Amino acid sequence: MSIQSSIHPVILCGGGGTRLWPVSKQALPKPFLPLIGERTLFQQSIDRVSGRPNFAKPTVVAGEAHHGLIADQASGDIRIVIEPCARNTAAAIAIAAHSLSPDDIMLVCPSDHHISDESTFHSAAMAAARLASQDWLVSLAIEPTGPATGYGYLQTGEALGGGNRIGRFVEKPDLETAKRFLASGNYSWNAGIFAFRAGFLLDELNSHRPEMAALVAESFRKGQKTDTTFRPAPSPFEQIAGESIDYAVMENTSRAAMVAADMGWSDIGDWDSLAKAICEDAGRANEDGNVAKGRADFLDSEGVLTFSDGPRVSVVGLENICVVVDGDEVLVTSRDQAQLVGKLPGASSKGGAKCR
Amino acid sequence: MSIQSSIHPVILCGGGGTRLWPVSKQALPKPFLPLIGERTLFQQSIDRVSGRPNFAKPTVVAGEAHHGLIADQASGDIRIVIEPCARNTAAAIAIAAHSLSPDDIMLVCPSDHHISDESTFHSAAMAAARLASQDWLVSLAIEPTGPATGYGYLQTGEALGGGNRIGRFVEKPDLETAKRFLASGNYSWNAGIFAFRAGFLLDELNSHRPEMAALVAESFRKGQKTDTTFRPAPSPFEQIAGESIDYAVMENTSRAAMVAADMGWSDIGDWDSLAKAICEDAGRANEDGNVAKGRADFLDSEGVLTFSDGPRVSVVGLENICVVVDGDEVLVTSRDQAQLVGKLPGASSKGGAKCR
Repeated sequence: MSIQSSIHPVILCGGGGTRLWPVSKQALPKPFLPLIGERTLFQQSIDRVSGRPNFAKPTVVAGEAHHGLIADQASGDIRIVIEPCARNTAAAIAIAAHSLSPDDIMLVCPSDHHISDESTFHSAAMAAARLASQDWLVSLAIEPTGPATGYGYLQTGEALGGGNRIGRFVEKPDLETAKRFLASGNYSWNAGIFAFRAGFLLDELNSHRPEMAALVAESFRKGQKTDTTFRPAPSPFEQIAGESIDYAVMENTSRAAMVAADMGWSDIGDWDSLAKAICEDAGRANEDGNVAKGRADFLDSEGVLTFSDGPRVSVVGLENICVVVDGDEVLVTSRDQAQLVGKLPGASSKGGAKCR
Repeated sequence: MSIQSSIHPVILCGGGGTRLWPVSKQALPKPFLPLIGERTLFQQSIDRVSGRPNFAKPTVVAGEAHHGLIADQASGDIRIVIEPCARNTAAAIAIAAHSLSPDDIMLVCPSDHHISDESTFHSAAMAAARLASQDWLVSLAIEPTGPATGYGYLQTGEALGGGNRIGRFVEKPDLETAKRFLASGNYSWNAGIFAFRAGFLLDELNSHRPEMAALVAESFRKGQKTDTTFRPAPSPFEQIAGESIDYAVMENTSRAAMVAADMGWSDIGDWDSLAKAICEDAGRANEDGNVAKGRADFLDSEGVLTFSDGPRVSVVGLENICVVVDGDEVLVTSRDQAQLVGKLPGASSKGGAKCR
């Protein structure tokens, strides 16, 4: 890739999930919440790739339900692709690829992750883009900080210039396997951030998922375009069998590569992750490691995150818990078991259904 | 005391304190809250002594600020003494004693305690009344369940018919002393429930606190009486140096006696005590020992009390905590350290100042 080429950011706005219930909900999912600092995760995702010499105008892919939120929150110049329905990441990325030129390098980013070291993110993105321009399908790789069982793992393969081949993919291993991976030092987390040459991504989709590739292409051809938005045609798009880009392409291609990115990454997958990410933002925790969003008082307490939309939260004699107050819901969870929050009756009945 | 004689209950409505913040507050203190079951502690105090053959009409002693609450909550036939200002229990009890005949047996009860075994309470009250009619000043004695440092302790002295002399009084011992008392088996908690012959109580007050006795007598003489209320005259009443009945009389008299009362007593001194008291009320806790007042969901949690005035409380992966939601305040405390709640900024700035 020459220094003149641009990276075309593609920001995927789906998700939400139930593990940040009660704050994250279907009507206002995780990307659109100011979880860390004053800007929302979506805004931070846009900010991260805006106003930089090597980055072109971002493309945001989202559902109609969140069009208004995106218009409200995106202050800069963006293009929006409105999906007629959620069909997982492979279709979303392929539609975005069609909207670019075949030789454009796309940088696919989730809109609900946190990255504390932006400078490392930019270097890793440039390295990934360089490999992508050589027709590698590149995933940014995160060094594991624990034996997480909720992520996909990438085995480090042979060295390439600026990165490595991916040896193999292991999706959500059990705890024993995750511990082995961690001990081996040879596995990374798949952050869901990818660099592709648009034309090559579509070629590979066509090789491994020809039916999906054809439906995406037809939806794109029959789509409607305005100055700022593009809407794929619902009729063929709805027929797509939703699949993640990992399953549909990355695990099948012979051109999978990875670039290590030690950039303070978090997918803010639950309240514990959010507490950690806020603490990484320098100066946000008090000397006992307590963090408050909204009014809070702490007495004999350590490692407590409070997150309130109004009421004052007072915490006495407790360690490593999260207290969340949102309208008519109060959640109190241990940080250790925060991943269970999605199983609460409230989270499953009223929480955000997955949009993608 | 002959079987025809009546016990005249005297219900003291002061207190409130800050340790049940944010629910207990100056405007609506602890006695007037439905903390256990549907009836308030005050109502339960009245219920406990009403409609029984040996009990006369109760006298309630309170401040003007709570007159309305008392009128609203007391459904039965009561007499009310409205103190012009709070001067602690000795003055409140002495004023009530003046309003009775000298040979009436008064049973002094706080209005903010919980007693789960009413039948034992009634038996103990009868035994105490019998001793009181022989001019003993009688305190109901609670077998300690732990080395509490917040109570007064009574040392068991020589046996009397139906009770014992009190050997000595120890007010709020340190932890080591409390542990020694507990191990000795020879000390009880002072529950603040007393039986006195009215005339003898006033004689003893006159012996040990003649100035207070004179001021109370004058306040009574100059007081105003209606059908249901009596108001002592403010002018001399305000000059009284407030003192508890323990300090003013019980610790000085040679006629102090105690009657053991194993009646499931609790002063509901903090959120942990309340959780225990609710659990003692059969069937109120779930199989994990969780107790909910208001809507609540529990996941992987044990020994949790939730107390909400509206919002649903969801608790994940926690043990032995209390979560209290009251208007614009949310309190989360470990049960172990619940006695610290009064030290919170919210509790000390807005919590209930002691009325007595």
